Amino acid sequence: MFQFVSNGSVTSVKGIKAAGIFCGVKKRKKDLALIVSDSLCSVAGTFTLNKVKAAPIVISKEIVKQNGKVKAVLVNSGNANACTGEEGRLDALKMQKECADKLGVKPSEVLISSTGVIGQKLPVEKIIAGLDKIIPLLSEKGGIDAANAIITTDKKIKSFAVKVQLSKGETTIGSICKGSGMIMPNMATMLAFITTDAKIDQSIIQKLLTSCVNESFNKISVDGETSTNDMVTLMANGASGVEILKGTKDYKEYESALMAVCKEMAKTIVSDGEGATKLIQVNVTNAKTQADANLVGRAISNSPLVKTALNGGDANWGRIVSAAGNSGADVIPEKISVSFNDLAVLKPNFEIVLDEKKAFKILSQPEFSVNVDLNVGKESSTWWTCDFSEEYIKINADYRT
Amino acid sequence: MFQFVSNGSVTSVKGIKAAGIFCGVKKRKKDLALIVSDSLCSVAGTFTLNKVKAAPIVISKEIVKQNGKVKAVLVNSGNANACTGEEGRLDALKMQKECADKLGVKPSEVLISSTGVIGQKLPVEKIIAGLDKIIPLLSEKGGIDAANAIITTDKKIKSFAVKVQLSKGETTIGSICKGSGMIMPNMATMLAFITTDAKIDQSIIQKLLTSCVNESFNKISVDGETSTNDMVTLMANGASGVEILKGTKDYKEYESALMAVCKEMAKTIVSDGEGATKLIQVNVTNAKTQADANLVGRAISNSPLVKTALNGGDANWGRIVSAAGNSGADVIPEKISVSFNDLAVLKPNFEIVLDEKKAFKILSQPEFSVNVDLNVGKESSTWWTCDFSEEYIKINADYRT
Repeated sequence: MFQFVSNGSVTSVKGIKAAGIFCGVKKRKKDLALIVSDSLCSVAGTFTLNKVKAAPIVISKEIVKQNGKVKAVLVNSGNANACTGEEGRLDALKMQKECADKLGVKPSEVLISSTGVIGQKLPVEKIIAGLDKIIPLLSEKGGIDAANAIITTDKKIKSFAVKVQLSKGETTIGSICKGSGMIMPNMATMLAFITTDAKIDQSIIQKLLTSCVNESFNKISVDGETSTNDMVTLMANGASGVEILKGTKDYKEYESALMAVCKEMAKTIVSDGEGATKLIQVNVTNAKTQADANLVGRAISNSPLVKTALNGGDANWGRIVSAAGNSGADVIPEKISVSFNDLAVLKPNFEIVLDEKKAFKILSQPEFSVNVDLNVGKESSTWWTCDFSEEYIKINADYRT
Repeated sequence: MFQFVSNGSVTSVKGIKAAGIFCGVKKRKKDLALIVSDSLCSVAGTFTLNKVKAAPIVISKEIVKQNGKVKAVLVNSGNANACTGEEGRLDALKMQKECADKLGVKPSEVLISSTGVIGQKLPVEKIIAGLDKIIPLLSEKGGIDAANAIITTDKKIKSFAVKVQLSKGETTIGSICKGSGMIMPNMATMLAFITTDAKIDQSIIQKLLTSCVNESFNKISVDGETSTNDMVTLMANGASGVEILKGTKDYKEYESALMAVCKEMAKTIVSDGEGATKLIQVNVTNAKTQADANLVGRAISNSPLVKTALNGGDANWGRIVSAAGNSGADVIPEKISVSFNDLAVLKPNFEIVLDEKKAFKILSQPEFSVNVDLNVGKESSTWWTCDFSEEYIKINADYRT
């Protein structure tokens, strides 16, 4: 049993403090966030698969890989510290070390993360100066400020928490994230930081996070891009005293709750995608294999022609079927059926049952589902995407200016 | 030696007649084209790889596969006859047979092709009625009318011809094509019909066409989509008496000319891409393998973030490097250098030498090149893409309405 907490965030979790401030990387808005746990946390992380990895990604990934324990995560927005070479690496290490020193912990106990413009030198001195300002502000109510400080072109802050009832008591999962452009499977430019007061052994925490990320952040698309800076981390400090043990009913319950948080974050990221006006759930069913279900889900979610049609409320199922045919999956076009919410649009053998008016009504809603039944197997996959609007172009044509 | 002919088209070629008319598939504009050769032609073709293949694709592909000889190609625009099931197949066969009967040839000597909206029944009776109108209009000057009749959202007609001087005399290659949205490697929604009066044996014509298509139509991107209806055909009627024999100098010369025609068509398709305002040549050099060079070229050409940045004249090289890193190719980010035309922007080890003003000037031109030197091998690849403008969204949000 779990339930979402209103105004939840990373600091809804016992033993977690956070803060978010403006330190000068951006022109005006908050650009530095710090999340700190009272005690050492086991940690899991998922990182971008782009071969071009930002400096903080390389450093934080190594900590997770070495099964390190961490106490804090420091995040700046406004500058990605990506494509900045050796200088960028030194800047990242510097920001990590200064933060660790000021918190009185080891550098390897501080994860770091950056998001923003690629290829510009990180103004690391501003971040270091900011540390003296942010550390005194750390508080159990600072989660929303931290959520504010990690966003870039996001229109809304993204922050959630759930309370999970387990056999040995209650534990909480808190989270903040940022998304917007360059979102696609393999976690394009998005950051998500999850905290929990459950006790989760290092041996199982990565598996837990990976399974949730696969069904949430890895199933969303804004524009088919994957960024240089994406990361999702889960820090577990055990402050609730409730332990999650492998193979138990509690484990399953806890995984469901973590999954719910991850899906909520993923959906919020898509619905706040650059220029997005609609959140579309793509349900692919009855594929031959799981891989095929994913190929079709991804192809439809990434198709500019599908996304522009949905922007215009146009029931252009032909583009959906064409995207499926292009996906690389083993599909038999004649067997495909398509519906929008509960409204059947296309039945097998290309029997068109489209009621344009009813379809337009559904496609004009801010949320709806596109259901594609491949009818050749038993595997399914759920994806989330948004429409492609003129505003997407505006935002991205002028991003750096 | 070859040179482009002014106002060239399929009918610049000896023994080729064509016409283009309005028959009622579209609301007003020309929608039916017919190209007929005086004598039987050997034929080659390349067809969409989308698993969802329009009815005419299946039929025409079979003719090419069976090494058939053809006399004509009949094309309608306004309706793709795709996702139309068995009824669509019968309609396609009907349009082929009626055309053959009226020309006094076998159905298997008539290639057919359709382009337009997917998933709507082909108004085949209108096409058949149109045959009585179009056949009397067939003429040696009808190429431009035919070019007009095959376009959909294209803003310009696309029609070219070259004269090739070979050791045994002169031969001509003529062409018409249509493109616009859904263009991407593997020949997305585009049609190209090439005629030649060279004599080319059936045993080598396909190889000749395939090699040219690979370096032209398969290296362009408007929006990363691949349609259900794409096809390129080459019909050779031998009317010039000039024969192209394998392994000869003439073969190479002729191939260069055919390649030039295909590249010209491909570039025109991109520059007339839906909402395109700029034609961008992407040169990828010094990749480890040819496949890697193509992966990087395709990734950059298809990236919405790169394409929107170029729309805004924004020298956002970080997005270019990020796309390369995401392409799946074996790249070493630190070794990449980037230039726009002759202007160096990024040197290895992320040394930024960008002059924003000079870059903006280049990126504001209607044509320029983006050069990406991977610096890890010796293979290269050239692609063509266009920018992504707000107009692309407008066109595609309202396409069917």
